[in-house]
Amino acid sequence: MQDVQSGMPEFPLPIDRVGVKNLKLPLLVQDRLHGQQHTVADVDLCVDLPGEFKGTHMSRFLESLSHWSKVLTYESIKELLAEIIHRLEAQKALLRFDFPYFYSRRTPVSGHEFLMDYKSFLAGEFSMGEIRMTQGVEVPVMTVCPCSLAISKQGAHSQRAYVKIKCGYKGLLWLEELIDTGMSAGSSPVYPLLKREDEKYVTDEAFANPTFVEDVVRCVAFSLSRHPRIIWYEVEVESFESIHNHSAYATITGRGKH
Amino acid sequence: MQDVQSGMPEFPLPIDRVGVKNLKLPLLVQDRLHGQQHTVADVDLCVDLPGEFKGTHMSRFLESLSHWSKVLTYESIKELLAEIIHRLEAQKALLRFDFPYFYSRRTPVSGHEFLMDYKSFLAGEFSMGEIRMTQGVEVPVMTVCPCSLAISKQGAHSQRAYVKIKCGYKGLLWLEELIDTGMSAGSSPVYPLLKREDEKYVTDEAFANPTFVEDVVRCVAFSLSRHPRIIWYEVEVESFESIHNHSAYATITGRGKH
Amino acid sequence: MQDVQSGMPEFPLPIDRVGVKNLKLPLLVQDRLHGQQHTVADVDLCVDLPGEFKGTHMSRFLESLSHWSKVLTYESIKELLAEIIHRLEAQKALLRFDFPYFYSRRTPVSGHEFLMDYKSFLAGEFSMGEIRMTQGVEVPVMTVCPCSLAISKQGAHSQRAYVKIKCGYKGLLWLEELIDTGMSAGSSPVYPLLKREDEKYVTDEAFANPTFVEDVVRCVAFSLSRHPRIIWYEVEVESFESIHNHSAYATITGRGKH
Amino acid sequence: MQDVQSGMPEFPLPIDRVGVKNLKLPLLVQDRLHGQQHTVADVDLCVDLPGEFKGTHMSRFLESLSHWSKVLTYESIKELLAEIIHRLEAQKALLRFDFPYFYSRRTPVSGHEFLMDYKSFLAGEFSMGEIRMTQGVEVPVMTVCPCSLAISKQGAHSQRAYVKIKCGYKGLLWLEELIDTGMSAGSSPVYPLLKREDEKYVTDEAFANPTFVEDVVRCVAFSLSRHPRIIWYEVEVESFESIHNHSAYATITGRGKH
Repeated sequence: MQDVQSGMPEFPLPIDRVGVKNLKLPLLVQDRLHGQQHTVADVDLCVDLPGEFKGTHMSRFLESLSHWSKVLTYESIKELLAEIIHRLEAQKALLRFDFPYFYSRRTPVSGHEFLMDYKSFLAGEFSMGEIRMTQGVEVPVMTVCPCSLAISKQGAHSQRAYVKIKCGYKGLLWLEELIDTGMSAGSSPVYPLLKREDEKYVTDEAFANPTFVEDVVRCVAFSLSRHPRIIWYEVEVESFESIHNHSAYATITGRGKH
Repeated sequence: MQDVQSGMPEFPLPIDRVGVKNLKLPLLVQDRLHGQQHTVADVDLCVDLPGEFKGTHMSRFLESLSHWSKVLTYESIKELLAEIIHRLEAQKALLRFDFPYFYSRRTPVSGHEFLMDYKSFLAGEFSMGEIRMTQGVEVPVMTVCPCSLAISKQGAHSQRAYVKIKCGYKGLLWLEELIDTGMSAGSSPVYPLLKREDEKYVTDEAFANPTFVEDVVRCVAFSLSRHPRIIWYEVEVESFESIHNHSAYATITGRGKH
Repeated sequence: MQDVQSGMPEFPLPIDRVGVKNLKLPLLVQDRLHGQQHTVADVDLCVDLPGEFKGTHMSRFLESLSHWSKVLTYESIKELLAEIIHRLEAQKALLRFDFPYFYSRRTPVSGHEFLMDYKSFLAGEFSMGEIRMTQGVEVPVMTVCPCSLAISKQGAHSQRAYVKIKCGYKGLLWLEELIDTGMSAGSSPVYPLLKREDEKYVTDEAFANPTFVEDVVRCVAFSLSRHPRIIWYEVEVESFESIHNHSAYATITGRGKH
Repeated sequence: MQDVQSGMPEFPLPIDRVGVKNLKLPLLVQDRLHGQQHTVADVDLCVDLPGEFKGTHMSRFLESLSHWSKVLTYESIKELLAEIIHRLEAQKALLRFDFPYFYSRRTPVSGHEFLMDYKSFLAGEFSMGEIRMTQGVEVPVMTVCPCSLAISKQGAHSQRAYVKIKCGYKGLLWLEELIDTGMSAGSSPVYPLLKREDEKYVTDEAFANPTFVEDVVRCVAFSLSRHPRIIWYEVEVESFESIHNHSAYATITGRGKH
């Protein structure tokens, strides 16, 4: 059968990245407390393509995945990148896994445990003999508005905000580290389960600690900028303001201590 | 050219609704204050199809639209439904327009005016000589938790909640009526623009009027159940709890006074 | 601490459904071939609320879940519904789990196996001593346009379409049965991995079997209407037309043989 | 009333961008053929914030918008950026408007005209006395697979693909130029309305011109790299493969002739 992909393209430009996107897969990810956890990921796999080839061979990405362990670790990502480089005869390979990550939270007073989900991703890029890892997580927090608190008779508007952290790193970086960093930067963490005594505690704590999105983004950036295994970071905070129908937003990018 | 659509289907079952979905179109909708306003709609158009025809003629929906005024009124909906019935030789025709609707809000103290957007829809169905109209809108409000307020030292968690109203009606029903009904059922309306003095007012008002999703859904249902032009209604309230990563939800369906 | 929820509401209307929405949870679902599979679900839990109570106790839904096995079977759904009824002192309880379900597909010629994901849900309702189960799945298929095929020199436009099946049933109904029914109703199933010889096979098969959305929806409805354990069904087919920027759509609702 | 925002932050880091996001607004955009067209935009407005201020004044973004013409041109963007810089006492201001843009397409044979929608955006950044403009559009096209066409008995799989173009530019760049560039790079443009003779024409044309995502992305990149007013560009092509449940994807970034 004809191998159309190996023919000459009309415009022989090199392609930065070509591959498959939005492939769903069940897999195991590393869990600091339990070793591993089951989740479901959206997978993107790409390679570069030189100007002289018309097309890449898309089915080979799937074949690489099908021989892969489906356990997401630094080692297995390295193996998958190498396999893709080999099967697709590429110089550069990139992969990204987006998945919900579950982390157990204990309620502050009643002591119930329950799982919280955090949108997370892990990405790797192989290029020029080197692997670059990127990791990210989205952490919901509660913010109490300092301005509203200062000027109102009683109370202050509060809302759910999302802290989105993305960073390049070397060595082992636990998602739990990023989650803890994000979680402690708002007025209060959010919880899946709160009994009445917990709700009182959370409200009291949050109102003792009012934060603008500016405060949250700075607090996270400050932590990340001192982290020994982080190379670069991007923090975004988006707060779904309870007094508006739009969001308040702040972002800082910077460098860590690696 | 062959008319494949008019052939016999393998399984001659009547089809309830067949047509086009997610067609985008700029159009004019009725505005109580200004007569008309420009917006952009997602359009769905459908007909029934008897068991003996293999397919409907999809391009005729577009032809019907292309001869249509693109001004969304009861009269123009009637004309479009009649045109679809005629062009597609159908017994039944349905249409639905989903669009953002803009309604000017005045800040409570400083008196600034600014447009707020509300996700809205208008749908019509022609069947057995009769037209049935449905209308809906999604109204953001602020809710302050009555339980958190009663038990906490200071403050209470608040959040943005959405009141989704859907109803069948006869005669003229303004989107503004539904929006006003939804808006006044929370602890406070939300606003696009709030100066400091407005923010104080809104916070004070919201904390003087704490509401559960249960309170909000009941307040809206009570209003709609007494409305002379409403035949049936469905109200849903979804609150993006600021202390959780999930929503609180409540819904009531009922009948109006028509 | 004050139990605000047990107070009197301002508008003492009974609430049809009140509860929590969009809670994420890892769990095990039944798998016809392997017994069980790991997945991640979005969970909604609701009860009814009589007119005389101001609010339900939202944290009890989470407590019910936290004592639950996290294995999704008819038996465990029954237990969870009973637990919710008991903990929330309700007459009616509803739950719904939405999750990606993975089902292994073998390529038609080269014989590779790979997992395909299908958006699925399982819902249960307890009311008046009876449990009503609902199940649904979204099956991607390929459709080749019969009209385009009949009138063109060569080829015909094809596209990805989604068959959405929803049904009430009694007894055991495997998701795999619904998936197989949807999958075989298009011009061809879709596959995660296709080698060149498979791609030829799939293209040849699809062009030998052109289908409109009308054909697909009827074929599925015909199957479901003869199914001994299905009480009622709703089938929707939405085709992301490759020649348009909108969808073609068809839907049939009907009754099964139970 | 206290101006909390002007206080000192706990972590005095400068913030790259802070502002409001996802504000909806009706406005007028430039149209090459008709001068102007009405649409609805999602608006993001941001400034930088020095390390010594706790918070920005979010309401001033809305005030800037409320004094603005709501006609989107290079001149009005410049004015709005200047107004934001002034009102928020910032060094840097950024804005972005995302909106559906409508462009009339004539069917190739029957000659009907109908509007097609294209997801578009226009962004401006003021920094160090200079304004940098960015523009983007998402263009749906039809792709016929060259491999499937070469190896199959009859036909080939085709699908809808989206060409996403983003570029920095100087001077006047019409959205229509970007749309035309994207539209002509696939196997065929897509159309809102096609009569049977048009459908034949489109199918014939598409099958005479099979394209991989690689071909499409290169064709667009080639055009943009020769454009005299484009400084840099990014092209992404995502094809919703009709034989798979995932996408094929390719991207090229490069520099124009400005």
